[in-house]
Amino acid sequence: MALRDTEDRIAANSTANDLADASAAHVRGLIRKGEITGQTGGMALGQMQGNLAILPADLALDFARYCQRNPKPCPLVGVSDTGDPMLPTLGVDIDIRSDVSSYNIYRDGALADSVNDISDLWRDDLVTFVLGCSFSFEEALLADGVPLRHLEADYLVPMYRSNIATTPAGPFAGPVVVSMRPMPVSEAIRAVEVTARFPMMHGTPVHMGDPAGIGIADIDNPDWGDVPEIRAGEIPVFWACGVTPQAAVQAAKPALCITHTPGSMLITDLPSGRPA
Amino acid sequence: MALRDTEDRIAANSTANDLADASAAHVRGLIRKGEITGQTGGMALGQMQGNLAILPADLALDFARYCQRNPKPCPLVGVSDTGDPMLPTLGVDIDIRSDVSSYNIYRDGALADSVNDISDLWRDDLVTFVLGCSFSFEEALLADGVPLRHLEADYLVPMYRSNIATTPAGPFAGPVVVSMRPMPVSEAIRAVEVTARFPMMHGTPVHMGDPAGIGIADIDNPDWGDVPEIRAGEIPVFWACGVTPQAAVQAAKPALCITHTPGSMLITDLPSGRPA
Repeated sequence: MALRDTEDRIAANSTANDLADASAAHVRGLIRKGEITGQTGGMALGQMQGNLAILPADLALDFARYCQRNPKPCPLVGVSDTGDPMLPTLGVDIDIRSDVSSYNIYRDGALADSVNDISDLWRDDLVTFVLGCSFSFEEALLADGVPLRHLEADYLVPMYRSNIATTPAGPFAGPVVVSMRPMPVSEAIRAVEVTARFPMMHGTPVHMGDPAGIGIADIDNPDWGDVPEIRAGEIPVFWACGVTPQAAVQAAKPALCITHTPGSMLITDLPSGRPA
Repeated sequence: MALRDTEDRIAANSTANDLADASAAHVRGLIRKGEITGQTGGMALGQMQGNLAILPADLALDFARYCQRNPKPCPLVGVSDTGDPMLPTLGVDIDIRSDVSSYNIYRDGALADSVNDISDLWRDDLVTFVLGCSFSFEEALLADGVPLRHLEADYLVPMYRSNIATTPAGPFAGPVVVSMRPMPVSEAIRAVEVTARFPMMHGTPVHMGDPAGIGIADIDNPDWGDVPEIRAGEIPVFWACGVTPQAAVQAAKPALCITHTPGSMLITDLPSGRPA
């Protein structure tokens, strides 16, 4: 994945800064009106943001099992009723057809389209799954004083396929994809302590130290995101990542699957600091 | 519910004492052979024990949603594949048809039978759900020095219907059923701290202090279990209880539902002290 375009990034950051203190409902309202169509990082700080996967009902029980069996990469924070576009357990008046800024449409496992509204694609057999994402635990780490290099240096967090297998369920299987944040060992220990409180946002790291320990041959060659900067005295710390279920869904090749576009999350009314 | 018969209790305690240090696999082997047909409390200490609900597949997605929406009363620790009696995510060679000491068979919501093996009832459309239970968090509280009156005084923990509603899913709905343990305020604070580490075993209390705060009119008149002994200087502390999903399932009146008989849990290979 290439570096994001600098001008886009500055524009997105500017919008995010304006909306950092906005309510989740306000930001969702702007999204529903089409006034925000991109990244949601930094908006409505303090509100939990989530990854999205919408699947036909005949795959929903297997996907629920996949999440239950792999809670670190797939922390399930909400499931809709079949055919119901609303998500009352995650917030007031959340309509999943219009309240995410950008959606990826996968057909038979291949990206077919990216759109800003899926009202015309909604069907009576669709089930929405919302999974915890790393934004919330990064907020907690920053609040605790743990430095996060990719935010300081403004690059995308690097992500890697590990050699840790997820526990399969039906057609869903594949490796745990991990995100990596470099830090001194003392901060890594503190990061374990902090993220232990957030099992619904990937929880504690799955690995730290030697990348080869989880099958990563070249730390400077991530499968997604940017090349990291690891300074002397720092170790890489690896967390299970929300790309894991996305990769598993794409490999399962369902006739239809709708996800958020990376970085364009669902902003819920739940407090991001609430552990579970 | 009446007090248990004293002789039965002594016999059960004697067996439990003999098997306190046994492995989960050893105890499951005795259960499979029909040599244990009753309570499993105190056996294979250190191994997570779980509540059981087996349902037809057409209700499984709604029940998975019910658990996701109500994690304190319904902490989901395992789900089988449809029609598969084995539970590889919970342990080696666990056959749910034979490895629980006593099963309750519900037909249309009514208790129809209690049996020690369900091999003849197994069907290709059944799905097994295993939920965390209070045995593991009681182990953690005792290890931390928090006193548990019902164990000291050898009575059944009292359980009450609260006025807290669960979040419904499909046909599953109803009040949160709570268990109550009396203790001094200082121990109650410590109990919150300890049980916060165990979200998969009901987690932190849902209430403490005035029973009326959650709609309990008479603390001396529990809906299940024994009348409690609350001493001067103690407050009642209430945790969400595994009877909640059982009551929801019975109210939903599925044509068939199979649960464990209260106290006769599935003993898994998972460490009971592992938080999540």
